[in-house]
Amino acid sequence: MIAYLFEFIGTAMLLLLGNGIVANVVLKNTKGSDAGWVGIALAWGIAVFVAVFIAADASGAHLNPAVTLGLAVIGKFSWELVPGYMLAQVLGAMMGSTLVWLSYKKQYDATGDPEALRATFCTSPAVRSPFWNLVTEIIGTFVLVFGVFFIAGGTFGEEPVSLGSLDALPVALLVMGIGFGLGGPTGYAINPARDFGPRIMHALLPLRGKGTSDWKYALIPILGPLLGGGLAGLIYVGIGM
Amino acid sequence: MIAYLFEFIGTAMLLLLGNGIVANVVLKNTKGSDAGWVGIALAWGIAVFVAVFIAADASGAHLNPAVTLGLAVIGKFSWELVPGYMLAQVLGAMMGSTLVWLSYKKQYDATGDPEALRATFCTSPAVRSPFWNLVTEIIGTFVLVFGVFFIAGGTFGEEPVSLGSLDALPVALLVMGIGFGLGGPTGYAINPARDFGPRIMHALLPLRGKGTSDWKYALIPILGPLLGGGLAGLIYVGIGM
Amino acid sequence: MIAYLFEFIGTAMLLLLGNGIVANVVLKNTKGSDAGWVGIALAWGIAVFVAVFIAADASGAHLNPAVTLGLAVIGKFSWELVPGYMLAQVLGAMMGSTLVWLSYKKQYDATGDPEALRATFCTSPAVRSPFWNLVTEIIGTFVLVFGVFFIAGGTFGEEPVSLGSLDALPVALLVMGIGFGLGGPTGYAINPARDFGPRIMHALLPLRGKGTSDWKYALIPILGPLLGGGLAGLIYVGIGM
Amino acid sequence: MIAYLFEFIGTAMLLLLGNGIVANVVLKNTKGSDAGWVGIALAWGIAVFVAVFIAADASGAHLNPAVTLGLAVIGKFSWELVPGYMLAQVLGAMMGSTLVWLSYKKQYDATGDPEALRATFCTSPAVRSPFWNLVTEIIGTFVLVFGVFFIAGGTFGEEPVSLGSLDALPVALLVMGIGFGLGGPTGYAINPARDFGPRIMHALLPLRGKGTSDWKYALIPILGPLLGGGLAGLIYVGIGM
Repeated sequence: MIAYLFEFIGTAMLLLLGNGIVANVVLKNTKGSDAGWVGIALAWGIAVFVAVFIAADASGAHLNPAVTLGLAVIGKFSWELVPGYMLAQVLGAMMGSTLVWLSYKKQYDATGDPEALRATFCTSPAVRSPFWNLVTEIIGTFVLVFGVFFIAGGTFGEEPVSLGSLDALPVALLVMGIGFGLGGPTGYAINPARDFGPRIMHALLPLRGKGTSDWKYALIPILGPLLGGGLAGLIYVGIGM
Repeated sequence: MIAYLFEFIGTAMLLLLGNGIVANVVLKNTKGSDAGWVGIALAWGIAVFVAVFIAADASGAHLNPAVTLGLAVIGKFSWELVPGYMLAQVLGAMMGSTLVWLSYKKQYDATGDPEALRATFCTSPAVRSPFWNLVTEIIGTFVLVFGVFFIAGGTFGEEPVSLGSLDALPVALLVMGIGFGLGGPTGYAINPARDFGPRIMHALLPLRGKGTSDWKYALIPILGPLLGGGLAGLIYVGIGM
Repeated sequence: MIAYLFEFIGTAMLLLLGNGIVANVVLKNTKGSDAGWVGIALAWGIAVFVAVFIAADASGAHLNPAVTLGLAVIGKFSWELVPGYMLAQVLGAMMGSTLVWLSYKKQYDATGDPEALRATFCTSPAVRSPFWNLVTEIIGTFVLVFGVFFIAGGTFGEEPVSLGSLDALPVALLVMGIGFGLGGPTGYAINPARDFGPRIMHALLPLRGKGTSDWKYALIPILGPLLGGGLAGLIYVGIGM
Repeated sequence: MIAYLFEFIGTAMLLLLGNGIVANVVLKNTKGSDAGWVGIALAWGIAVFVAVFIAADASGAHLNPAVTLGLAVIGKFSWELVPGYMLAQVLGAMMGSTLVWLSYKKQYDATGDPEALRATFCTSPAVRSPFWNLVTEIIGTFVLVFGVFFIAGGTFGEEPVSLGSLDALPVALLVMGIGFGLGGPTGYAINPARDFGPRIMHALLPLRGKGTSDWKYALIPILGPLLGGGLAGLIYVGIGM
C-alpha cells in the first residue's frame, strides 16, 4: 500500500511541476512566458528529479506505466503489482494537474484560448499524423525505458524498488535529453499516465473558454509509450543484459 | 549562536545571489537583461545551492521560516530555537538585499521605474487576488518543505542540523523546479524571510524614483509559506513518515 | 563483441538525442524552435551523459574515434581494437541519425530548406575556410580528449574500459563547455563518427528538397578531431602524466 | 613545478572556454549569437568545472590570484608559492585567450567593432564608475572566495592542494550564481588573471579594427578581486572558522 501511495504522490509531484512550467509558458498573465522550450525541457527534467527523489525509497519511483511495463517485461517487477501501480500513476497525474489549475487559477480564467488551455493538461502533435506520431512516441519512450534499465541496474534484484534516490539525477538528465532531442514533434508524452490523467481532468474541470479534450488523439500517447517501453524490455533482454 | 550566525550568513548569500539575478534582469544598464525567466529560475536555485553549502554544517541551512516551522511540526527541530532562527533569517535577507543594492548602485540610480525597483526586493503577484495568491504560495511552499523532508531524511536525528552540504544540490534543483513550474502567478516567495526582509529594506533605502513598498500584499508571502510549510509537516506525519 | 555492440548503441543514442535537438531547432513545425544555442549546447552535453551512462560498463564509452585514438596514443587502449571501435562508432552514428529522421519524419517532409536539412545530419562552418575550420576542430577536440584523460584517470589500468558511469556527468559538462565556448565557428563536430556517419545517411535517405551532402567539407571534421585527439595524447604523455 | 604548470594549464582552459562563449555571443558570423547571458553565465561556470577538474590534483586549482591570496590569508597556502601561482595564472590566461583568437580567427577578422573585440578579452563596466565598479567586484569576489573556503574545507590541511576534483561542480555552480546574480554591472572579472592576462593579449594581437585596450579601467578588476578575496579571508578567520 505504501508503494501505491508513493506512486500517487510522486506522479502528482511530477505533473504539478511539469505541467506547471507549461502553464507558466502558455497561459496569459504569468511571469515566465519567455521561458520557452529551454525552460520546458529543463523543468520537466527537474520535475522528474523531485518526483523520483520523493518516491524512490517507497515505490521505486516508476511514475510511468511504460516504466512499470518495461520492468515487468525484463522480470524485475512483479506482474501482480502492475495494475495497482498504473492506477496510482493515473490518479496521481490527475491530482497533479488539478493542483496546477489551482496554482494558476487566475491565469486559467484570463487565457480563453482552447489550444493553450489543453496544452497545460495533455500533449498534442505539432503535425497530426497517427502513424508518425506513434513512431515518435515509441522512439522517445524506448530511449527513456532503455536508459532507466541501465540507471537502475545497480539496484536490480531488490524488488519492488527499482530506482533509488541517487538515480534521480541521471533519470532527470535522461528526460531533459528526450525533451530537447525528441520533444519537437509530439511534445513527448513518453508516459501514458502523464497524458491520460490530465486529459480526464481537462474534460472534468470547469475551464473558461475550454474546447475539445481531443480524445481522438488520446490513444497515441498511451499506446506509443507502452510499445516503446515494452520494446526496450525485449531488446534489453535480447542483448543478454 | 554559531547556528544563528550561519542562518544569517546563508540567508544573506541566498538573497544576494537571488535578488541579484532579478536586478540583472529588470534594472536598466545591466549586462544580463536578456536572461529572462530561465535565468531567474536557474539562478535562484543556484543561490540556494551556495547558501545551503555554506550554512549546512553549522545551522542545518533552513534559511527559510517555512522550513524551520515544518521541521518543528514534524518534531525534528526544537521549538525553542524557532524564534531565533526566524529572526536571523529575516536579518540575513535584509543584509543580502542591501548588498544587491550596493552591487547595482549605478543601475538603481538609472532605472526610475517603481515596479522594477520593488521587484528587485520583494515579490508581487502577476494578477492580484489575495485568496488565489495565497493558494499559489501555499502549494509552492508545500512542495518545497515536503521535498526538503525527503532530502534531509538521511540525516534526521542529528539536531539541529537538518540539511548537510550533500543536500545542497537536491534542494537547489527542487527550488529551480518550483520557480519554473509554480513561479508564474506570484513570483514564488515560498519563504517569508525572502520577502519580508527585503521589503523592509525597500522601505528604508533611499532609492531614486521609489514607489510604494506595497505593504498591503506583504502578508500573503508570509502567511502562504508558513501555512504551506506547516501543512507539509502535518501530511508528512499523517502518512506515517 | 559486447564492447563493439555498446559503442554502436552508445553512439546511436548520442546522435539520436544530439541531432534530435538540432532537428527540433532548425526544422519547420516543431515545438522547440526557440531553444537556440543554449538548447543545442545543453542538449548535446546531456546526449553525451545518456550515451556514456549506457555504454560505460561494457565498452568504456569512447563513442568517438578521436577519443579512441587519443587513448591508444597514451597507451591506455589496445591498437588492435581501434578499427573495430571506430567502425562501430560510425555505424552507430548512422543508426542514430536515421532514428532522428524517423522521429521527425513529418517535419523533414515540410521543411524543404537544403541547408536546414543537412544541418540535422552533419556540421558545416559558419565561415568556410579549410585551414581555420581545421584549427577550430583541432582545438575543440584537444580540449575534449585532454579533459577525458583526466576524467577517466581514476579508472586507468582496467582495459578496455576507460570511462565509467560516474564519468558521464563530467564528460557531459565538458562537451557542454566546448559547445558553448568553441562551437561558434564550425558547429563543433569534435568527433569524426558524429559527422561522417550522418553525412552518409544524408546522402542515402530520400529527403524532400535535399541539396548537396557537402562532401568537400567532410574531411575537416574527420581530420581535425583525429589531429586534436592525437595531439592531446602527445601532450598528456609529454607533461609526464 | 608541476603545480605551476597546472595552474597555467587550468587557467588557460578556463579562459579558452570562458572567453570562447563571449566570442560566440558577440562576434559576427558565429552559430551561438543567440546564447545571451544565460549562455554566458552557464558556460563560464562550466569552464570553471573543466579547469578545476584538470588542475585539482596537481595544483589545487586556484586559477585565480584572489583565491590564492585568500587561501594565504587564512593560513592554508604558503606565502612563498603565491608569486609563482599568480604568474602562472596570468600566463595561462594569456594562452587561453590566444587560443580563443585562433579558434574564432575568421570571426575576429569579420567583426570590426572595437567594443565587441575587446569584450572577448577583458571586462568593461556597463556604467563606468571607478568606486561603484570596485564595490561590485569586491562583493562578487568576496562571495567566490568565501564560498571556495567552505567547498575546499574538507581537504584543508593537505597543502598546496586546496580544491579536489570533487569540488569542481560546487565551484562551477558558485561561479554560475555569481555570473547570474552579480555579473550585471561589471561583467564579473572576480579574477585578476582572467582580466589582466587577456587585456595584455588584446594589446599585443593584430586584431582587425581594434580600438583601445582600456588600460584606465584595468586596475579595477585587479584591485577589486584582490580586496574581495582578502576580505573573505579576514572574515572567515574572524568568525572563527
